[in-house]
Amino acid sequence: MKKAIVLHSGGLDSTTLLYHAKELGYEVYAISFDYGQRHDKEIETAKNAARIAGVKDHKLVKINLDAWGGSALTDKNIDVPNFTGNENEIPVTYVPARNMVFLSIAASWGEAIGAQDIFIGVSEVDYSGYVDCRQSFIKAMESAINMGTVSAVEQNKPFTIHAPFISMTKDQEIILGTKLGVDYGKTWSCYNGEDEACGTCDSCVLRLKAFEKAGMKDPLKYKISDSSL
Amino acid sequence: MKKAIVLHSGGLDSTTLLYHAKELGYEVYAISFDYGQRHDKEIETAKNAARIAGVKDHKLVKINLDAWGGSALTDKNIDVPNFTGNENEIPVTYVPARNMVFLSIAASWGEAIGAQDIFIGVSEVDYSGYVDCRQSFIKAMESAINMGTVSAVEQNKPFTIHAPFISMTKDQEIILGTKLGVDYGKTWSCYNGEDEACGTCDSCVLRLKAFEKAGMKDPLKYKISDSSL
Repeated sequence: MKKAIVLHSGGLDSTTLLYHAKELGYEVYAISFDYGQRHDKEIETAKNAARIAGVKDHKLVKINLDAWGGSALTDKNIDVPNFTGNENEIPVTYVPARNMVFLSIAASWGEAIGAQDIFIGVSEVDYSGYVDCRQSFIKAMESAINMGTVSAVEQNKPFTIHAPFISMTKDQEIILGTKLGVDYGKTWSCYNGEDEACGTCDSCVLRLKAFEKAGMKDPLKYKISDSSL
Repeated sequence: MKKAIVLHSGGLDSTTLLYHAKELGYEVYAISFDYGQRHDKEIETAKNAARIAGVKDHKLVKINLDAWGGSALTDKNIDVPNFTGNENEIPVTYVPARNMVFLSIAASWGEAIGAQDIFIGVSEVDYSGYVDCRQSFIKAMESAINMGTVSAVEQNKPFTIHAPFISMTKDQEIILGTKLGVDYGKTWSCYNGEDEACGTCDSCVLRLKAFEKAGMKDPLKYKISDSSL
């Protein structure tokens, strides 16, 4: 079986991705990051979701990107805003170079275990403000990995970064994931880390809208559940 | 003053680099990594050398690349070998994707503080076995950073990765650094973390040879100091 490294946060996209990579026949090595984000809920959910999905191995990498903050997700002095719907703004939840850091580390693990396939659950259509969710970045990063690893340069084992949801909307992902058996009640998307999802941050609102568009009910508990926000 | 992020390990190359970047007129933000390497000596030396060089800020980023090892530097089950002189082999001290991980994180800090210049002290001539020390990788990584950060894509503030030693030999670096006031007795290159440098690992032997070629004596204490090894 071919091995795949799958970036996994315990969220809707990346949990769907675990199942998708398994469906494609890969042996899945999930990797999650404790990068100083606001809450541990994401990490606990990631561990649990990876276990339920039956991955071969799951690594948690700790890295203190909160040493400089620069984002509402890593700097407790910046509040997570409620949903604004303004897609042209750079979201304050943007974490500088986050996907680049994650993909680099995934390549490191991949090279160590002989996995040439890396999966990332980004979508270009959902979040236009995040430049590191775009196809142009994914291709540039794949080139960098293939120039910067011995296995690619010297041993003819190039890496491929797979971003199968890049042109999909979240409702399409939900429909796919539901077919593959994902229990979305065991995933977590909220930027706030309370017992129940807030229902008002960008991430919650986009998720609620996507479930509505998919014609389904989100099984997750919300404090406020109103997709019309 | 323009800000520069300088990758800094406390070694000969990167300490020279701190002084070189300052000489070029940059305000220097040094970044070091605790990535599970064999010993803390490197980190203590890095802190001390950054302080002596008078950098504006110094960050230590912890990241557990030893979660998968794959290198004699991050896996205590793999011994650091003595110098072999075989440049065609992939060194067992190669850490998968290390410079890519470091540069990604440097870009994250750079974006957070508005620094567009990143300095890395790699040399293509010294270590042909390390593919992530080659110009081709540096250029690919610069492209990835410029595709994956908001400041580069949306705000017309592209990054430049400077690798000023890429075509220099270590003896040339030593001559440069000596002119700039580097105290090489306060740097550390040995892969082993004992009180005195071993003098027999790849890193020690290349350093000793370089001092000899530069017509100088290495002020560092060695257990065995024999550049003819």
